[in-house]
Amino acid sequence: MAKSERHNGVDFERDQSHQHTHDAMQECIEECLNCHAVCTMTLQHCIATGGEHTEVNLIGILLDCAEICQTSANFMLRGSPYHVVTCAACAELCRACEEACRAVNADEQLAHCGEVCAACAESCDRMAQMGSEE
Amino acid sequence: MAKSERHNGVDFERDQSHQHTHDAMQECIEECLNCHAVCTMTLQHCIATGGEHTEVNLIGILLDCAEICQTSANFMLRGSPYHVVTCAACAELCRACEEACRAVNADEQLAHCGEVCAACAESCDRMAQMGSEE
Amino acid sequence: MAKSERHNGVDFERDQSHQHTHDAMQECIEECLNCHAVCTMTLQHCIATGGEHTEVNLIGILLDCAEICQTSANFMLRGSPYHVVTCAACAELCRACEEACRAVNADEQLAHCGEVCAACAESCDRMAQMGSEE
Amino acid sequence: MAKSERHNGVDFERDQSHQHTHDAMQECIEECLNCHAVCTMTLQHCIATGGEHTEVNLIGILLDCAEICQTSANFMLRGSPYHVVTCAACAELCRACEEACRAVNADEQLAHCGEVCAACAESCDRMAQMGSEE
Repeated sequence: MAKSERHNGVDFERDQSHQHTHDAMQECIEECLNCHAVCTMTLQHCIATGGEHTEVNLIGILLDCAEICQTSANFMLRGSPYHVVTCAACAELCRACEEACRAVNADEQLAHCGEVCAACAESCDRMAQMGSEE
Repeated sequence: MAKSERHNGVDFERDQSHQHTHDAMQECIEECLNCHAVCTMTLQHCIATGGEHTEVNLIGILLDCAEICQTSANFMLRGSPYHVVTCAACAELCRACEEACRAVNADEQLAHCGEVCAACAESCDRMAQMGSEE
Repeated sequence: MAKSERHNGVDFERDQSHQHTHDAMQECIEECLNCHAVCTMTLQHCIATGGEHTEVNLIGILLDCAEICQTSANFMLRGSPYHVVTCAACAELCRACEEACRAVNADEQLAHCGEVCAACAESCDRMAQMGSEE
Repeated sequence: MAKSERHNGVDFERDQSHQHTHDAMQECIEECLNCHAVCTMTLQHCIATGGEHTEVNLIGILLDCAEICQTSANFMLRGSPYHVVTCAACAELCRACEEACRAVNADEQLAHCGEVCAACAESCDRMAQMGSEE
């Protein structure tokens, strides 16, 4: 997608290459929205649990990851060509959040959050690369 | 839900009345996230279409509705007892947005957005009333 | 301000009554942006401090208050007539946050946050009443 | 700032090098909050003005820039080490928004917005470089 064009998020032309982009973007929007929701609920879980779960770096990265996922989803929902920039940033934060979640042992919610972050990072990376190749 | 308690969004106790609240809240979160996404895409559609679609009140209410839906969803994702306040505000904005969407004739995207807003308003109203009864 | 008109946030007509509204709104935007910033920094302070500072209700209300202040400021920045709705919600959350901050003894940052919340609540209440009288 | 440490936004140690970082970050927070506010008001101005002011790329970049400025400010307010990532993204969006504003002739509000975006881009670039050098 050239930087100078802004696509209408809901009315892509349906030629094959656009369709491909559209499907990948739709999937990425869903990953970002899901990751935002799971990080926000996991944050609440951590604060309710207390102890090492309220460690400053864990709480901080959950807040960071939730916020950039929301921003990244919004750029794609608006069909912004700059989703390339926000998807790249989002992938980086998701990977950091995945690592922080996996560092805490024996917590099902954190393990789930780590998996969701990993999937979102992968999807955002794909979008960032797709955008910069075009 | 008493104002002084904050529930963990992901770990409600599973007694019957909480389960009922939990299901209704889960549904309302989904309605708000969906309405946020649809309003944001509809905004993009309106700006791309031009003409009466860029009329200041229509663009304005789509931005307003998208933002309060996001805020309302976030309060529920955090398990905040104050979701009662944000759900009530969200219901009011959704109803205003529905009206603005229905005022434009012969536009499929706006008609769809109006329906989504109506469903979200109803769900938010239920949550607001459920919260204030308890 | 009648519900059906959306004012341009940067180009109000300069007759006396609008000027009065404009000044009050400008002040309220600043209170909301300041309260958003102070709640966000106070949250970080609480998590870094640990102990009773990471109690679930305190962290929760700081997140809630920061988010609704941001939303409330954005509605006014867009000149939305529905700022009446978001200012009323914001006033309620600010008052709850003030109370939560004051409940913790001997913490300068929380005392400051409580004062900022009180000032923002008062300003938002004024805007909400001004809007509904017109 | 090392990636593994999260600083308390309000309680930096007061040695000289941290003080320097603190002042630059404080300035950058203010630039981002100001740029968010000015882009949001300029958006409203453009929609109210109509004509070429509602051109899809201009409206889109104003929304994008406003949102990433808000996100970038929030990361710094939380003292997140990942402000390096969001400041870099913010600088890129601010420069694109500056260009879009300057492309419209003879509009005082857009000229002002372009200047604010340029100042924010410069400040965010400084923060991004400062962070990655440490």
